[in-house]
Amino acid sequence: MKKFNDLIKEKCLEKNNRLCIGLDVDNRRLKNNSLDYMQRFIFDVIDSTIDQCPIYKINFAFYEKHGSKGYQILEKIPEFINNRAITIADAKRGDIGNSSKYYADAILNNLGYDSITVSPYMGMDSIEPFMRYENKGVFILCLTSNNGSKDFQKLIIEDVELYKKVAILVDQCNINNNLGLVVGATNTDYLNQINQISPSIPWLMPGVGFQGGDLSASIKSEGKNGLSIINVSRGIIYHGNGSIDDISKSALEYTEKIRRLL
Amino acid sequence: MKKFNDLIKEKCLEKNNRLCIGLDVDNRRLKNNSLDYMQRFIFDVIDSTIDQCPIYKINFAFYEKHGSKGYQILEKIPEFINNRAITIADAKRGDIGNSSKYYADAILNNLGYDSITVSPYMGMDSIEPFMRYENKGVFILCLTSNNGSKDFQKLIIEDVELYKKVAILVDQCNINNNLGLVVGATNTDYLNQINQISPSIPWLMPGVGFQGGDLSASIKSEGKNGLSIINVSRGIIYHGNGSIDDISKSALEYTEKIRRLL
Repeated sequence: MKKFNDLIKEKCLEKNNRLCIGLDVDNRRLKNNSLDYMQRFIFDVIDSTIDQCPIYKINFAFYEKHGSKGYQILEKIPEFINNRAITIADAKRGDIGNSSKYYADAILNNLGYDSITVSPYMGMDSIEPFMRYENKGVFILCLTSNNGSKDFQKLIIEDVELYKKVAILVDQCNINNNLGLVVGATNTDYLNQINQISPSIPWLMPGVGFQGGDLSASIKSEGKNGLSIINVSRGIIYHGNGSIDDISKSALEYTEKIRRLL
Repeated sequence: MKKFNDLIKEKCLEKNNRLCIGLDVDNRRLKNNSLDYMQRFIFDVIDSTIDQCPIYKINFAFYEKHGSKGYQILEKIPEFINNRAITIADAKRGDIGNSSKYYADAILNNLGYDSITVSPYMGMDSIEPFMRYENKGVFILCLTSNNGSKDFQKLIIEDVELYKKVAILVDQCNINNNLGLVVGATNTDYLNQINQISPSIPWLMPGVGFQGGDLSASIKSEGKNGLSIINVSRGIIYHGNGSIDDISKSALEYTEKIRRLL
């Protein structure tokens, strides 16, 4: 069975890209507010970008907002993508082992997402049930793109910052070659340091676009055997007048920028 | 508008109890595996215990496992409880502010839960959107009941452990009197120390029962103006032969033990 970190690298090399489109769709920003329209819009965004785009990230908050009906859209996305790209369930789960096992089963197995984001606060035994799916990926929050990253992540523990402790432990636990880190593209001063700790681990990098993260620094910090996966959400799906043409044009522009930097 | 920490205290005083029943229902352990039966079972557990029990905790993992159909049960529980007890959505969410806003809207507003558990890793701006609902509560993971709590939570940051940093910041941010902490009942040696930091903040204490947490130490460590909310899940819902009679008997036993300690 192929390991997730090999699978995601293959898909990025095949499309010569590192772009991840974040499908953080707010139905109130669409021409029509209905969930049927939202689902059609999401499928159109995917179809119009998938020739270039190797990865899609689905932030569960935007779907859970609509209750079980939103969850039904979550159920349909992996089936619609149908292995044409890698999917990341941006769900930021994490619980005691017994409960994490259920989340892993729910999202990686039943819903069929290729990978998931998880929070490390509860420790490695809360992450282990996700890791067991070797062909599925686990992106662990390390240094996030928001201001709040200063509250705990940047505090110094036994001479190194908490986020580095996370990176060190994740690197040590990557025995199934399916762990990644979430590293905000807004943290350019820190990228080299994380790279030194975990040069072979893929990074999911949110924050480019609306949050002002640095695309060039993010791509240039790509680890020797790692990957800098550049997530853009609002900067693509709300580009221009929000038409599929404008979205597809924006995805192509990001793709070209990334290719020039690779 | 009443603040959440006052509401939950009122409910605990009214029923002279601190018991929280965790509705972590695994349908494979029921006589009948169907989701209709699972929902009926949950409602029967609630009806047979609600005269004594002031709080129910619903761990979302056990419902999300069943996809949108499990989510439909999540939608029905607050309506069924109908303010006869306080509900805690044990969802352990937390994301950048924009996404946390959607989770808060989804769970506190649309689903109608009275409170939610959140992870602090991303910092206070990831918690702030939940805090804004003053009549709703936010239980922030502090020192959890699993072994993995040693991986990060017990590491020392600038002379104090990470979990204490969390307790200190939560205490400072409790301006709406609606923040609580998740403090595992398995951590008896640490309870007094957390109490000194945040004596007025309610603690949600999982770990009694199956995980071996100490009921007596947990109740005795209750803060002067705080609350020690004792969560029992598997120790009640799978008690004896799993019949509603056995469950109701177990809930009553825990209630009597708690009342003797109060």
